Amino acid sequence: MQIKLNSPLDMHLHLRDAEMLKVVAPLTAKYFSWAVIMPNLVPPVKTVEDVKNYKKRIKKASWQELFNPYMTIFFHEELTRENLEELKSEILSIKLYPAGITTNSEGWAKDLLSEKSLEIFWIMEELWIILNIHWETNDFVMDREKNFVPIYEKLAQDFPKLKIIMEHITTKESADLVVKYDNLYATITLHHLYITLDDVAGWMLEPHLFCKPIAKRPEDREALLKLALSWNSKIMFGSDSAPHPQSAKECSHCSAWIFTSPVALQFLVQLFDKNNSLDNLENFLTNNAKKIYNLSVGNSGMHSIPEKIITLEKKEFIIPEKFWEVVPFMNGTKIEWSVV
Amino acid sequence: MQIKLNSPLDMHLHLRDAEMLKVVAPLTAKYFSWAVIMPNLVPPVKTVEDVKNYKKRIKKASWQELFNPYMTIFFHEELTRENLEELKSEILSIKLYPAGITTNSEGWAKDLLSEKSLEIFWIMEELWIILNIHWETNDFVMDREKNFVPIYEKLAQDFPKLKIIMEHITTKESADLVVKYDNLYATITLHHLYITLDDVAGWMLEPHLFCKPIAKRPEDREALLKLALSWNSKIMFGSDSAPHPQSAKECSHCSAWIFTSPVALQFLVQLFDKNNSLDNLENFLTNNAKKIYNLSVGNSGMHSIPEKIITLEKKEFIIPEKFWEVVPFMNGTKIEWSVV
Repeated sequence: MQIKLNSPLDMHLHLRDAEMLKVVAPLTAKYFSWAVIMPNLVPPVKTVEDVKNYKKRIKKASWQELFNPYMTIFFHEELTRENLEELKSEILSIKLYPAGITTNSEGWAKDLLSEKSLEIFWIMEELWIILNIHWETNDFVMDREKNFVPIYEKLAQDFPKLKIIMEHITTKESADLVVKYDNLYATITLHHLYITLDDVAGWMLEPHLFCKPIAKRPEDREALLKLALSWNSKIMFGSDSAPHPQSAKECSHCSAWIFTSPVALQFLVQLFDKNNSLDNLENFLTNNAKKIYNLSVGNSGMHSIPEKIITLEKKEFIIPEKFWEVVPFMNGTKIEWSVV
Repeated sequence: MQIKLNSPLDMHLHLRDAEMLKVVAPLTAKYFSWAVIMPNLVPPVKTVEDVKNYKKRIKKASWQELFNPYMTIFFHEELTRENLEELKSEILSIKLYPAGITTNSEGWAKDLLSEKSLEIFWIMEELWIILNIHWETNDFVMDREKNFVPIYEKLAQDFPKLKIIMEHITTKESADLVVKYDNLYATITLHHLYITLDDVAGWMLEPHLFCKPIAKRPEDREALLKLALSWNSKIMFGSDSAPHPQSAKECSHCSAWIFTSPVALQFLVQLFDKNNSLDNLENFLTNNAKKIYNLSVGNSGMHSIPEKIITLEKKEFIIPEKFWEVVPFMNGTKIEWSVV
């Protein structure tokens, strides 16, 4: 049995830089047509110049003609209308991190609803620039996403024409919220469809399953799965795949994030297959994102998706133990689908 | 400023065996008069012979005359009246682990309320043998202790003369339950008075703060602290200190448990001092346990506590990075009290 995926898109990806970029960019480029690249380098990607240079490095590292890295910048309060107008030709969206909430996000202002931020959202709305939000507060780890709901509601209400992407949602409350407002959309990762906090810390402590936002309760995972498998057009796949060397995961203070890029499609096909939802996989992986981000198949221009057919077959695949120094999600386990 | 502690007791301790025992036994013997030694070795401590031999190894390893290791056995459904009568001269209590819930606990039967178990509880009640319970179900990690409440209530009601120790309680529900029934008592660890899940997985993942039961929510920690600082006579200190080599903590599948034995008194004095509750520390560390376990100061006999005065002074103490291969709780941090 085979399945062909037409131009899968990863709408939330971390590629890092330097040596790590060279290792992981080809692993995404091999399986995906297009990916939204997160800007949280050190220092973060902020200017047109930063974007152009980082994009060049990604293209060089990815070794694939049929791959379009789609660039974002790091939201900060100093953004002006001039910046945004200039950036508009290089980016489709801006990634906002509440200050200090995740790796390399210390730079962003504390107050999400400050006057300056609101002014920037207003200009973004006018210029049709999408807003991606890592939406957590600084509260107790299991409440951070849930407690962000009122802020999200306020943004959704105050900026009805701003497309707001709730990135890597992990809770039942988020699954409920995204369908409540027309201008809210969401990405869901592979790992949040598979694991709960039990897998991270229920038996042994598993640093390779530790991510931000942290995996939540079984009923949260169920709600995400239901949403991903449904025909809801507001939901996209965003892997949030992020590589860390094994030494930063297996140590006394382990970094967050999970590396899924080279195994995501295999796991997703298995998951949708088991749930008799293969018919909807292309919506989750491609079609919904095309509509939300206004993309079309083609080989040139910022909005174009290189057409790329990825074929998978129902044949045992054992997840490799490592890709260079990076341990992937569920290393060593057997799954039922492999990429041809 | 100095404070003298009269014969501190650790009512819940893991010493392991072999080389590890030789490292950690002296570290408890140095600071405590008496400790309740958990029986979950591989294979577990079950018989009179096991108890006597393990006690000999502990005495030999601890190098201290003024230290009384108090032995427990592993609860199992094959225990008979004859066993229990014979064991009574060597143990004061029996430790019950729901099957598979923690390290080396696979041996215990699945059904806590099986006919055989109930019969054993009935004999224990008659023989005045105390029951120590690691009380978690196999549910979602944050619910395991809370979901055990109905089982506890049933035991407390059905065996009103059986002293039941709720070991290492971690939740608000447990703090409420222990005061509800006359025959329920509880131990509280040092680490559950200090940390929440935020410390374990809120920022970086911290394997040296990973324990079972896992640290819970801020309101749970608050409830435990309130109970420990109060004059409640049902609450005892039980460190649940358990040594693992660094290699079993900093790896891809990290073992649970925290090593606190050589730093527990310093942290406890600091905590009680900061909360203006130093007057109550000796109740938490010695007096309550003496009453519950029917102990008295002396040098011979199973119920005797060797008198040992431990003096602490308000003087900076930096927690060592390691004791042999074992990383202690909060290694490298400064605290305000040290043992003279």
